[in-house]
Amino acid sequence: MKERNRIIVIGGVACGPKAAARARRCDPQAKITVIEQGEFISYAGCGLTYYIDGVIEVRNALLSRTPQDFKKTMDIDVLTGTQVTSINRVAHQVETMDLKTGKRAVMDYDKLVLATGAKPVIPPIEGRDLQGIFTLKTIQDAEAILSFITSNKAQKAAIVGAGLIGIEAAESLTSRGLKVTVVEALDWVLPTLLDAEVAAFLTRHLEDKGVNLLLSQMVTRFEGDGDGKVRYVVTKKTRVEADMVLLAIGVRPNVKLAKDAGLAIGVTGAISVNDYLQTSDPDIYAGGDCVENTNLITGSKVYTPMGSTANKHGRVIGTNITGGQDSFPGVLGTAILKAFDCNVGRVGMSEIEARKAGFNVTTALVPAHEHAGYYPNNERILVKLVSDTETHQIIGGQVVGRGEAAKRIDVLATALTFGGKIETLANLDLGYAPPYNSAMDPLHHAANVIRNKCSGLAKALRPAEVKGKINKDEDFIFLDVRERDEWQEWRIEAPQIKLLPHPLLRKQLDKIPKDKEIVTLCLTSVRAYQAQRTLEGAGFRNVKFVDGSLVAWPYETVGNSKEK
Amino acid sequence: MKERNRIIVIGGVACGPKAAARARRCDPQAKITVIEQGEFISYAGCGLTYYIDGVIEVRNALLSRTPQDFKKTMDIDVLTGTQVTSINRVAHQVETMDLKTGKRAVMDYDKLVLATGAKPVIPPIEGRDLQGIFTLKTIQDAEAILSFITSNKAQKAAIVGAGLIGIEAAESLTSRGLKVTVVEALDWVLPTLLDAEVAAFLTRHLEDKGVNLLLSQMVTRFEGDGDGKVRYVVTKKTRVEADMVLLAIGVRPNVKLAKDAGLAIGVTGAISVNDYLQTSDPDIYAGGDCVENTNLITGSKVYTPMGSTANKHGRVIGTNITGGQDSFPGVLGTAILKAFDCNVGRVGMSEIEARKAGFNVTTALVPAHEHAGYYPNNERILVKLVSDTETHQIIGGQVVGRGEAAKRIDVLATALTFGGKIETLANLDLGYAPPYNSAMDPLHHAANVIRNKCSGLAKALRPAEVKGKINKDEDFIFLDVRERDEWQEWRIEAPQIKLLPHPLLRKQLDKIPKDKEIVTLCLTSVRAYQAQRTLEGAGFRNVKFVDGSLVAWPYETVGNSKEK
Repeated sequence: MKERNRIIVIGGVACGPKAAARARRCDPQAKITVIEQGEFISYAGCGLTYYIDGVIEVRNALLSRTPQDFKKTMDIDVLTGTQVTSINRVAHQVETMDLKTGKRAVMDYDKLVLATGAKPVIPPIEGRDLQGIFTLKTIQDAEAILSFITSNKAQKAAIVGAGLIGIEAAESLTSRGLKVTVVEALDWVLPTLLDAEVAAFLTRHLEDKGVNLLLSQMVTRFEGDGDGKVRYVVTKKTRVEADMVLLAIGVRPNVKLAKDAGLAIGVTGAISVNDYLQTSDPDIYAGGDCVENTNLITGSKVYTPMGSTANKHGRVIGTNITGGQDSFPGVLGTAILKAFDCNVGRVGMSEIEARKAGFNVTTALVPAHEHAGYYPNNERILVKLVSDTETHQIIGGQVVGRGEAAKRIDVLATALTFGGKIETLANLDLGYAPPYNSAMDPLHHAANVIRNKCSGLAKALRPAEVKGKINKDEDFIFLDVRERDEWQEWRIEAPQIKLLPHPLLRKQLDKIPKDKEIVTLCLTSVRAYQAQRTLEGAGFRNVKFVDGSLVAWPYETVGNSKEK
Repeated sequence: MKERNRIIVIGGVACGPKAAARARRCDPQAKITVIEQGEFISYAGCGLTYYIDGVIEVRNALLSRTPQDFKKTMDIDVLTGTQVTSINRVAHQVETMDLKTGKRAVMDYDKLVLATGAKPVIPPIEGRDLQGIFTLKTIQDAEAILSFITSNKAQKAAIVGAGLIGIEAAESLTSRGLKVTVVEALDWVLPTLLDAEVAAFLTRHLEDKGVNLLLSQMVTRFEGDGDGKVRYVVTKKTRVEADMVLLAIGVRPNVKLAKDAGLAIGVTGAISVNDYLQTSDPDIYAGGDCVENTNLITGSKVYTPMGSTANKHGRVIGTNITGGQDSFPGVLGTAILKAFDCNVGRVGMSEIEARKAGFNVTTALVPAHEHAGYYPNNERILVKLVSDTETHQIIGGQVVGRGEAAKRIDVLATALTFGGKIETLANLDLGYAPPYNSAMDPLHHAANVIRNKCSGLAKALRPAEVKGKINKDEDFIFLDVRERDEWQEWRIEAPQIKLLPHPLLRKQLDKIPKDKEIVTLCLTSVRAYQAQRTLEGAGFRNVKFVDGSLVAWPYETVGNSKEK
């Protein structure tokens, strides 16, 4: 047996340093080396948009530890500016190159950790090499953007891609005083994360904040000025002026080193690892943005790079490379972001994803107050809940709005992890006090809506279905059961719509034709559902309410409201 | 078969109206009557302290529905100012009395719902009938307090009881400009909800806000002035001036009607119900503050009146009295409150409760940032996690601090509901973005601390154990491994304490005697734990760190810090 376990960790941002630190705590004797090709280690990649924003003022705030810290406090050697050029699995060696001097060296390992991360996808678009076109992944990227904005007095920015980084950057650059256009090839913002009606809520908010959104548009080329600087972003439909461009269409795992060493690459294109985060070579572990994960709902492999996952990977790896045994179960695709004053979160599968995966789903779309309605500073959120119609299992959730969203996402993430059902969600003993919640949490409401739908008590149409009926000029009664003053302030305009306030409904039942389809609407669905039940009780046979009612209605409306 | 199901609901505050409304939606034909002895229905009892506070400005904000609303929109009859004087179970009748006219009547029911609530406990203390001594349960109570404060220009208030209402009222009355003293017979604030070291955090905050806390003191009598108004609150140790007194020592279920009707009363003194919320008479259901619940962890019966539970009960009852079948699984004793700028939450069992119930527990005490350390407006929280040492099951949690607590409590409530283990908690895919969280949530950290303790890697002493060693003048080395500037700003004073900054530790190992017990300390335990492992790696055999370190240290310290 060797005296000291020799551990080499390739990659010094999130998973790598975590694995090294954990390994040190588990094995005080191991010889541990972290090799990072960049200048910095342990930096907060997820904070870069806030650095651009100015919310985080000092670059050092993003740097949690220096190589010197690692050496002094944990006896871990850190080589920055050093690239691993190849892995010799048979000899258990890596070849390194000092990026400044070009000097090569060979190092022995007993256990090797790949935490090589990911790099931004650069689409093969004409003009992509023009000055002023950036990606955002490293501290250097952020500094290059800031410096370009300043030295070029940039006033207009285009962001390609309306994913997490694209939306966060839209806020950052707007805060810096730039006029921002976001170009997204798919039909709505956060297209791989949200369903259309939830995204519509965010879209309204972004537009209110002055962001110009170009959806369903592919960038065909970038045009420059005479000096080789970007000037325009061109799509098939339009040409947008831009002093700078941020490419934010996603990242790809850095797998070259692994591939060259003959390690298995998974279906997603990321490194394949087992539950112990072991690659196809038992002495080589991998974690963070370079590996694929198991989706806890479907069991299938997914590529969902996240700083939070990378840190958990690091701990598991640190344990396993020092003789312990720990495993990483998988992910739920949880994501959350702040977009100006709007909180947006999602977990599990969207309705679209779930239907694609073959689930028969029942959903709820519930506008709700973030806490007790009578307690001040109360903002709304819109909750979408997705469940399996047969098993009643919760399979996903989305929350959007100015109100508290992160808590609801985390509760759903926890319930999803345990394979929780709608019935259990409806009765969770969540913390209740007026500053934090209503007596019934929005998630309780959403779960109950699904229970009501499953039992046949509640019958709803999604906004898109109702809009379709209006567009097709169908003959139905669209019954808005709010009060007259609410109607005057804000309403949907459609030939079928008719105001009949809820308190008058019982008295005026004879005025409603019994043979027609009736669709009820209110502000949040509470009264519309009650009206559906009242009408059914009075013998009407074809009544449904609009899911989420006016608050969740993503189409054009007349008038205005703070609820909008 | 009867034409219409006749439903009578006794009690119109939370569970009652909810049961009635749900019954209406399930059964459009039922004849539903709600009988309430007070003037108001559907009011927010949990908002009363905020009404006193002035945070909620208009009384009507607390009233969510009027009897007229119920009639118009749901065809539910509401009789206010009406008392049910007896239940004739054989005849399926209740006798009512109009409290204004004294007129009695008899009403038939098919299903009866008892939602009779609870009333404040009034301790048999001498002088309790003096003017200016209040309880707080109804809107009238709140108005009486406000009017007394104004008309008597009250400047000093004493609150008897440091439970949820007592602490919330301490904030409300302080906000109103009164100097508040809280007298609590037990040894710390929220004594039935929190463990001592978590409560100590809240105590410091309350004292910072000017609240005078008299702990471990029973009130022996109230003394009045010549006019029959309260003037002093007297304990065995002291006499406190008070222009008004709030008795907040808990509530008792209103069970007289049920008892008189021969219904089973449970071990807790509240009405006994089965999972369907059915009393010992199958046609009589009961819910809300008048019934006992099942504790989901122990399976035993508990009395934990909560508005949130009452609402859930209402839905279950509404379903069951109209031919459906729903059940209520039980509670976790979840509670949360805002006390000035401090958020305090708890769920499951405290360490004390768990030990009393025979659990062998492992705990973690983790100070953490509410979100990414580099993102602004970042406040700390202190998390206590309690787990079963054998099964690794989570059995309780407490969170206190200026930072976000409700989310962590709700995640724990969800995990507890599913019988979740520490290992699962450690890897939950919670939402991560810098404004909401760190890459590792405080709950992840707490779970990992417990895992490290269970695996023998981490060895800790709770603050009380270390304090005990200091008090007994034991010979050990108390090693503060923070930096010198941190030490100068804020530290523990003890003969055993010694500063040795973490980065110097490895170099100065020879200065530390190997035969002595070593207890390491830092700000939050991260460095202290690392130091424990470093020392063990260097051959030291008797090393422990202080759980939660300085942030969780509830005893006197020297200097000051924003972390305090």
